[in-house]
Amino acid sequence: MFRGVLASGLLALRGLRLLRAPPLSVRQGSKRSCTVGVRSVDDGPKELSNFCLRSHTCGELRREHVGQRVMLCGWLQHRRCDRFVVLRDFHGQTQLIVPQDQLHGPGHELLHLQLESVICVCGEVRDRPPGQHNPNMPTGEVEVHISSVEVLNRSRKLPFQINEAVRVNESLRLQFRYLDLRSKQLQHALRLRSNLVMSMRTFLCSQGFVDVETPTLFKKTPGGAKEFVVPSREPGKFFSLPQSPQQFKQLLMVGGLDRYFQIARCYRDEGAKPDRQPEFTQVDIELSFTGQQAVQDLVEELLCHSWPCDLPPLAKPFCTLTYDQALNLYGTDKPDTRFGMQLVDVTGEVGNNRLTSEHASCRPRQSDCVRAICVPRGSELFCNEDFCTLKGLAKEHFNQEVIVMRLCGNDGETTSEWLSPGEQHALVEKCGAGPMDALLLAAGERSDVCLSLGKLRLECVQLLEKMGLSLRPCGLFQFLWVVDFPLFLPRKDNPTLLESAHHPFTAPHPDDAHLIYTQPQKARSQHYDLVLNGSEVGGGSVRIHNSQLQRHVLEKVLQEDTQQMSHLLEALDSGAPPHAGIALGLDRLVALLVGAHSIRDVIAFPKSFRGHDLMSNAPDWLSPEELAPYHINLCFPET
Amino acid sequence: MFRGVLASGLLALRGLRLLRAPPLSVRQGSKRSCTVGVRSVDDGPKELSNFCLRSHTCGELRREHVGQRVMLCGWLQHRRCDRFVVLRDFHGQTQLIVPQDQLHGPGHELLHLQLESVICVCGEVRDRPPGQHNPNMPTGEVEVHISSVEVLNRSRKLPFQINEAVRVNESLRLQFRYLDLRSKQLQHALRLRSNLVMSMRTFLCSQGFVDVETPTLFKKTPGGAKEFVVPSREPGKFFSLPQSPQQFKQLLMVGGLDRYFQIARCYRDEGAKPDRQPEFTQVDIELSFTGQQAVQDLVEELLCHSWPCDLPPLAKPFCTLTYDQALNLYGTDKPDTRFGMQLVDVTGEVGNNRLTSEHASCRPRQSDCVRAICVPRGSELFCNEDFCTLKGLAKEHFNQEVIVMRLCGNDGETTSEWLSPGEQHALVEKCGAGPMDALLLAAGERSDVCLSLGKLRLECVQLLEKMGLSLRPCGLFQFLWVVDFPLFLPRKDNPTLLESAHHPFTAPHPDDAHLIYTQPQKARSQHYDLVLNGSEVGGGSVRIHNSQLQRHVLEKVLQEDTQQMSHLLEALDSGAPPHAGIALGLDRLVALLVGAHSIRDVIAFPKSFRGHDLMSNAPDWLSPEELAPYHINLCFPET
Repeated sequence: MFRGVLASGLLALRGLRLLRAPPLSVRQGSKRSCTVGVRSVDDGPKELSNFCLRSHTCGELRREHVGQRVMLCGWLQHRRCDRFVVLRDFHGQTQLIVPQDQLHGPGHELLHLQLESVICVCGEVRDRPPGQHNPNMPTGEVEVHISSVEVLNRSRKLPFQINEAVRVNESLRLQFRYLDLRSKQLQHALRLRSNLVMSMRTFLCSQGFVDVETPTLFKKTPGGAKEFVVPSREPGKFFSLPQSPQQFKQLLMVGGLDRYFQIARCYRDEGAKPDRQPEFTQVDIELSFTGQQAVQDLVEELLCHSWPCDLPPLAKPFCTLTYDQALNLYGTDKPDTRFGMQLVDVTGEVGNNRLTSEHASCRPRQSDCVRAICVPRGSELFCNEDFCTLKGLAKEHFNQEVIVMRLCGNDGETTSEWLSPGEQHALVEKCGAGPMDALLLAAGERSDVCLSLGKLRLECVQLLEKMGLSLRPCGLFQFLWVVDFPLFLPRKDNPTLLESAHHPFTAPHPDDAHLIYTQPQKARSQHYDLVLNGSEVGGGSVRIHNSQLQRHVLEKVLQEDTQQMSHLLEALDSGAPPHAGIALGLDRLVALLVGAHSIRDVIAFPKSFRGHDLMSNAPDWLSPEELAPYHINLCFPET
Repeated sequence: MFRGVLASGLLALRGLRLLRAPPLSVRQGSKRSCTVGVRSVDDGPKELSNFCLRSHTCGELRREHVGQRVMLCGWLQHRRCDRFVVLRDFHGQTQLIVPQDQLHGPGHELLHLQLESVICVCGEVRDRPPGQHNPNMPTGEVEVHISSVEVLNRSRKLPFQINEAVRVNESLRLQFRYLDLRSKQLQHALRLRSNLVMSMRTFLCSQGFVDVETPTLFKKTPGGAKEFVVPSREPGKFFSLPQSPQQFKQLLMVGGLDRYFQIARCYRDEGAKPDRQPEFTQVDIELSFTGQQAVQDLVEELLCHSWPCDLPPLAKPFCTLTYDQALNLYGTDKPDTRFGMQLVDVTGEVGNNRLTSEHASCRPRQSDCVRAICVPRGSELFCNEDFCTLKGLAKEHFNQEVIVMRLCGNDGETTSEWLSPGEQHALVEKCGAGPMDALLLAAGERSDVCLSLGKLRLECVQLLEKMGLSLRPCGLFQFLWVVDFPLFLPRKDNPTLLESAHHPFTAPHPDDAHLIYTQPQKARSQHYDLVLNGSEVGGGSVRIHNSQLQRHVLEKVLQEDTQQMSHLLEALDSGAPPHAGIALGLDRLVALLVGAHSIRDVIAFPKSFRGHDLMSNAPDWLSPEELAPYHINLCFPET
């Protein structure tokens, strides 16, 4: 019986209900699922075909199914030889074959249907004939001889093909996001993300953490410049969308929810910024009666527990660097430790005043430092233009001169004319440089020198990788803790004042607690960052739980108006336990895990890098009538 | 060694780090946790003391711990006899005893510390002396003889006591929410909520559902009047905070994420409304290749799986009523089926024109109906004032007259003077009324009659319960499906036009699909509501997956501008599978589970019923400078 192809969607809808009759009904699926008990997310195969029409997914059939009658639903992926159709869902692909005697019946229409149309077929699983097995396809040993087919929905001709080989430009993919979601990459990323989050939840719940939802309609944070505002119906009064649940998680600790987590939606209005999203997600954790090391231990266990099993397992404990060490060795507070090329302190070797007059502009002052990085095979692989680019970058970003020394030959001899052979030898030896390596040197104020060389280190590795050297092996995930950050930094708009390096609730390093009252600019904090392959993927701190200290920091050090924070200060005064926490940036973490270039590739419906939803065209105009309940008017900027 | 009481929080902070040394260090906790593998949320005891100072929680110690040295952290709950202190955390309470020889040492301060201060104690677990066991306290067989104590944070005198017996007024509790969170009720509600959600996730993941986060910064929905607006930095352009991820979940289906769920934050700007929150949470589910019955099966399994184990298990399948049946039998589309008192059709018994002239105003027209409810023992228990109140309610809400018939004596004789004895007998028999019951009758247009009596039915049960009758046993949870709703309703502002009864994406009932084009007002939908104990806790539908049908509904039936929905129409045209879904109201569900009067009692930081955050005072004023980036001005209403 070949039930035939139903044309209209409405008929298809009715057909769908007809299909619910035996032999492969929804009810049957439902019955099968009665055996499902409590099971963990990673625990064996999932019940993918309960509560729906299909008997199997398109990725499921194997030789053991031969002879079974099955019902498959999916998208028309491919057609060939006027007899074969490949049906796809997001678990795989199955080859269908139209029996010879049906080729001029309703099967004809199937063979002429627009690709990406949605169909439901019944048929029998058969062995493929000898020689026609497809070893590249998990279902490649079988095919389904169809006995009935129903078109559930016809597709128009699509603006681009669902084919990972054809990656059209990103705006088009964002405009038709529902089509791009059919790509293997996005399906993989979103499913991995879901599994990762579920594993994290499982671990956190096993440790007694309570999942608490906190509000997103809150009041503005003092100094929280990047918060979206939401007008209320009360004239002149606004909510703000907070950048994190920071205050709420601390208040939960005061309220005795002593182990909190939340996969929290956060908001940040930064206008257009590449690879930032106006809304993003963090794995937010806070616990009481704890300290920095314990939070780090917790996060390490959390990540090890939830790490995708097809990746090499993580090793604990993760490495830790202090902020100072990170800056000195890698020229950044988020070092990529997958490769070497560390900064080397050569102040002793080169001397404070031995840079020649050609390099007068970078002549170090007495108190300053000289640092070098050694680029392996740099002398051989980089051309003059490459070195010019590198020097230009340091000049542009940090106004920092950089000197290049190309090592030649087998004896590692340098090309420098301004260092004595002894000094050259000491320098090369200190840097561990070999023949055909290149040294990049910078001298001056430590921070500029380090940041410049840190940037050049990353540029060099990219250049070297373009030339075929593999310095950062694919699939290597190198976590790193960076600790002992400064607690305060000079304010950018007025360097005589201080601002929090992270946020004003960060506790001082216990060894520096006294400095808060005397030299706050010298105090280190109990903040910790988690870095993965050179990207910051998390940050947290021990919080201030003492109200006098918090008040001192807000009023005296930061000169904030504590009126706005009175609820938090009162809470700290009401039996607040010591507490600490962390937030992991989920989007970034998943992007690194799947090797995506942008967090847009791990978010189902991201905004464009200009902050627009290209699919629905948001943000959009509102009429004055729609704004009236909020007592706001538009005021267009003068042009 | 009695380490002594450290006064300042800063010293306490340093003390906290000192305490990390053995024998009870954080590291030790961390090591213990290495044995934790994949485990489900309900799987045995949780590791509550890893990654923190304490060795045990305050609810954990039993006789088997006698002789062990332990470290406990918690809040000073209670003190008595100048020697005993009760320490509380949110897992229980433990009695501490200050040894006799320490009563004048630093132990003195402990005994004079403000209640609710936070302390950390070390000590030895000992059997309580004979006769001093407390059977009402899980830890009541033991006490801890303390050897050292540290004050981690002092509390001020609090505005109210953390004691479930003292429930102060709600505004004060909302203002100091972080204190109210310490109450047993809120701790229980939030922890139950977390467990419930985790069990739901575990079940959904086991069925292959993918947790996908959808944006909350979206564009306005046509007709979506209750959406908060969020100004963007582009002059005149706004995001909206959607009331549900409806469009996104459908687009995910088009995108092949064929089984989606999300615990989704939703927004609804209704101004001040009792027991509504501007942000709320729904368990959002959508799947492809499915139908109404399958979604109902799925939800039943989901709820059975995640149902708290200390409640009686749920029975499957849940009962189902059509919308018409619900209205006819219970006078509402969300019947409380825990008790009877159903509406009885007595049109035949009383006759269309037999109400006497005293009741002329409710004389039914020929085509109308007469309905009755029988209030058990109403004649005995209700006074005239009660009946006046009931009649007044029907008049006030529905302009509906209601006639009361009080049955007397043992023979069920009525007091009516306007029905013949035969008619009275037939009426009493049809209603199953007994002696001393009361009948409430209404006649007129069916909808008003039913809604009136439906409201009175609920009023009566409350009145009866106040009088000591138990009609709705505590702990009884009665789920019910209501199906076959009308697809469209007359618009309230213009009854000649139609609006969607639920939303414009709802598919018509297959038997009524043809009516969409001819008599849309008569079409039923494939919408289904889930009702628990008379409250709507969920609603969903089979969606329209055919773009022509969707366009017809939007353009022709609802007369909407489809321009705003072009992305959805295009998506339906691009290979959209048939799909259906549901959203469960998590706040309401948890409130019913824990017997809370308001959803505010199951949300960590709710807004007041006027929509304010009384703790932080949100929404709040913003300065013109803060509004400037959004190109909006305030326009205050004229007074």
